[in-house]
Amino acid sequence: MNMKSVSYILGWVLNIEAVLMSLPLVTSIVYAEGEGWAFVITMAMCASIGFLLTHKRPNTPNFRAREGFAATALSWILMSVFGCLPFYFTGEIPRFIDALFETVSGFTTTGASILSDVESMSHCCMLWRCFTHWIGGMGVLVFLLAVLPMVGGSNMHLMKAESPGPVVGKLVPKVRYTARILYMLYIALTVVQFLLLMLGGMIPFEALCTALGTAGTGGFGFRNDSFASFSPYIQWVVTLFMIIFGVNFNVYFLLIMRKFRQAAQCEEMRWYLGIVVCAALLICANIYDTTLTLEHNLRISFFQVATVITTTGFATANFDLWPAFSRALLVLLMFIGACAGSTGGGLKISRWVMSAKAMGSYVGSFLHPRGVRKVRFEDKDVEESTLHAIFVYFMGVFFIFTTSLLLISLEGMDLTSTFTAVAATFNNIGPGLNLVGPTCNFGFLSDFSKCVLIFDMLAGRLEVFPMLILLYPPLWKEAYHEHKRKQRRRAAMKGQI
Amino acid sequence: MNMKSVSYILGWVLNIEAVLMSLPLVTSIVYAEGEGWAFVITMAMCASIGFLLTHKRPNTPNFRAREGFAATALSWILMSVFGCLPFYFTGEIPRFIDALFETVSGFTTTGASILSDVESMSHCCMLWRCFTHWIGGMGVLVFLLAVLPMVGGSNMHLMKAESPGPVVGKLVPKVRYTARILYMLYIALTVVQFLLLMLGGMIPFEALCTALGTAGTGGFGFRNDSFASFSPYIQWVVTLFMIIFGVNFNVYFLLIMRKFRQAAQCEEMRWYLGIVVCAALLICANIYDTTLTLEHNLRISFFQVATVITTTGFATANFDLWPAFSRALLVLLMFIGACAGSTGGGLKISRWVMSAKAMGSYVGSFLHPRGVRKVRFEDKDVEESTLHAIFVYFMGVFFIFTTSLLLISLEGMDLTSTFTAVAATFNNIGPGLNLVGPTCNFGFLSDFSKCVLIFDMLAGRLEVFPMLILLYPPLWKEAYHEHKRKQRRRAAMKGQI
Repeated sequence: MNMKSVSYILGWVLNIEAVLMSLPLVTSIVYAEGEGWAFVITMAMCASIGFLLTHKRPNTPNFRAREGFAATALSWILMSVFGCLPFYFTGEIPRFIDALFETVSGFTTTGASILSDVESMSHCCMLWRCFTHWIGGMGVLVFLLAVLPMVGGSNMHLMKAESPGPVVGKLVPKVRYTARILYMLYIALTVVQFLLLMLGGMIPFEALCTALGTAGTGGFGFRNDSFASFSPYIQWVVTLFMIIFGVNFNVYFLLIMRKFRQAAQCEEMRWYLGIVVCAALLICANIYDTTLTLEHNLRISFFQVATVITTTGFATANFDLWPAFSRALLVLLMFIGACAGSTGGGLKISRWVMSAKAMGSYVGSFLHPRGVRKVRFEDKDVEESTLHAIFVYFMGVFFIFTTSLLLISLEGMDLTSTFTAVAATFNNIGPGLNLVGPTCNFGFLSDFSKCVLIFDMLAGRLEVFPMLILLYPPLWKEAYHEHKRKQRRRAAMKGQI
Repeated sequence: MNMKSVSYILGWVLNIEAVLMSLPLVTSIVYAEGEGWAFVITMAMCASIGFLLTHKRPNTPNFRAREGFAATALSWILMSVFGCLPFYFTGEIPRFIDALFETVSGFTTTGASILSDVESMSHCCMLWRCFTHWIGGMGVLVFLLAVLPMVGGSNMHLMKAESPGPVVGKLVPKVRYTARILYMLYIALTVVQFLLLMLGGMIPFEALCTALGTAGTGGFGFRNDSFASFSPYIQWVVTLFMIIFGVNFNVYFLLIMRKFRQAAQCEEMRWYLGIVVCAALLICANIYDTTLTLEHNLRISFFQVATVITTTGFATANFDLWPAFSRALLVLLMFIGACAGSTGGGLKISRWVMSAKAMGSYVGSFLHPRGVRKVRFEDKDVEESTLHAIFVYFMGVFFIFTTSLLLISLEGMDLTSTFTAVAATFNNIGPGLNLVGPTCNFGFLSDFSKCVLIFDMLAGRLEVFPMLILLYPPLWKEAYHEHKRKQRRRAAMKGQI
């Protein structure tokens, strides 16, 4: 592994983090909060380490798949470690592991919190907390690709490692322009939501936090009851935008290019919207409360379905008290996830649809053994290698999931809490059921369990393989040998001189 | 679909069922029980319908994969419907759906019972109940292949549809001799266990019931406390034989052929035994009760691990009261299952090992993108088509599993009960956790839920696809068109004459 290229990327990630922290810093000035110093210190640390790592551009831009994956995983870890420092320095989250958990939960757009009383937080820390969702939603490396003339080699590997979904959608041939278009769409949609929330009478700070959290499909609340106390209009707007941010961004690009017909024909979006509507109506029928209006029943059903399938994790109702059918359906939606190429998490609609079609074609092949039945998705033949990638991805999910399940079960919670704690963090949702339900938090878990869940959140956001590669011994062995070889070559060259 | 070939097979299945029922009939005579008449009537019904279907051998032995799968699924349904009649006729299980559930649970070697007081059952019915496990364990169609000079075409399809595992192991080139060898091994092992149990002081009837249930990895108990009240010796013998019947029968064939080294090198068996020992030791450490001896702690751990991984489902301890880690581990073992080519259920060790290796080779391919890394299992390269079959099989499991979960959740049980009720029936284990735990039974469920679980037990035993094909509309459309075409041809021929 080429460590120089990797550390160059890491340096830039820290530089960008320093710049991004100016937003909470400005907030602390606006609200005249003393907590701003924590951001100043952190920014200085990020910038100085970032400078050291980036002042010399690596002359051998040897950037292969392994570097892309390792750089992505390490970037996310590093950015979380530095990102949690303001919470820790200000003492608003007094324990480091808790601060790290909260920050990883932010960047990975999980929204699982260890805080029992979020309302007591300062404005600047609260904004940073919600801002991490926004940064993590589209990805910091995609941002890097958009703003930086990158080191040579194939940048596609970085994009691949950070973007969710079985195939990476290039909107335009150049990775750099694709990244820019994605971020512009992202910013535009966030601004529209912000304005609509303001129209509904939200104060600017809350509207900003909500818009940032929804855009990244994060889910940190800033009120102790999440969204239950907001007006129906606000709740519908949030529902709508959660659903919007769960759609493949290709669709919005097509809309801008005025290719309306093509946009409307996006197969993954159709499945996604179909599932949302069906699930919400089923849940509405199951939980129907005659003491409430039809609108109210529909509202809480759609809100909860949207919040779970897009893996946002806001709440307007304590769905832990709902009947078993609705709870089982929500747990199922946790695993379905949003569309590929959106900011949502989970296993992604496209993977499930392709897998289901592969199964259907397999059953069909018993009937017509000679007819070659290709799996078609989005009007294209699905390649064997894509199906294989989906298969190994599912296996990766399964092995990480079960290992985590066993480790978390050492806490001694009931099985539903254990299962949904892992499901809600791995799929980047936030709240689970029972002890980790929407009215509870993850603060009571042991440090060991928090570490396991931190790994799960990162593995879920980065879609398993970047994190697995970090744990793959041959990678480090090879990096060590490469390092040794270089040293020897340098020594030999010195000897010649 | 060629309905004639299929109904010919179905007829023979009924004939064989009539013959097999002579065992409980003899038991009723030995114990002078009046319930014997129920068997006489059922035998008469089976034999007469069987005669009608088999008296004319179909002249066009057109037997393809579709016929194999459909015949297998229909055989198991038919044999369960007739197999439950004695319970229903004698009134020992007064409701038909309950009798059917119990019989399907028997044939599929699940062992989930709707009875709350098994000790009040007559000897002949009890023996039939345990005998269904033995018949279902190795499979009635394999028996058919062993004893009958079959209709032409490829009988391999029948063997494939009924034998568990990703690839069908042919011991010898001829399907017929393979089936005979398998049944001889099966009978021999059952007899050895019977004798060992007799040595431990069990009365012959109980020893026979235990041996039949263990051999099929079934799990119906004949005492209300399952195996808790038996001596340590008996419990260890049962543990040992549960493990033995979970091993791929190829290994025993190799042992008989004196190929000891090859037998010991069976990769699947090594993984299987490794998992059993590790899981049992972990559980033993987790549940360690200092008021009991080490032997006692080891005994209940090994017994429960063996009973779950081989999907037998006997019980010596109420593992529902164990700590969360042990319960989570047991739930995980439910999904691992026994070896392919054994009488055990579950998803099978070989599938998991090959999948894990496919994942490892995928991670490795990031490091060496050009090196083609084949997945190797049992010292052979695994073909792409085998991995694809495993993938679609897992998908089939997932879709049936989640649909069942949603349907069973309408019962309104807690999620752990709902989840393990489906897991324990689909994987043919028997007891789950909480409301369907080892000290409970499935009798309280609604008829609708029982139907869903009956489908799950059959789908689990026949490994998904035979049951899915029955639900595949094009199959029936094609069968209908073929029928019409034949009618027209016959009419035309009559016209010519």
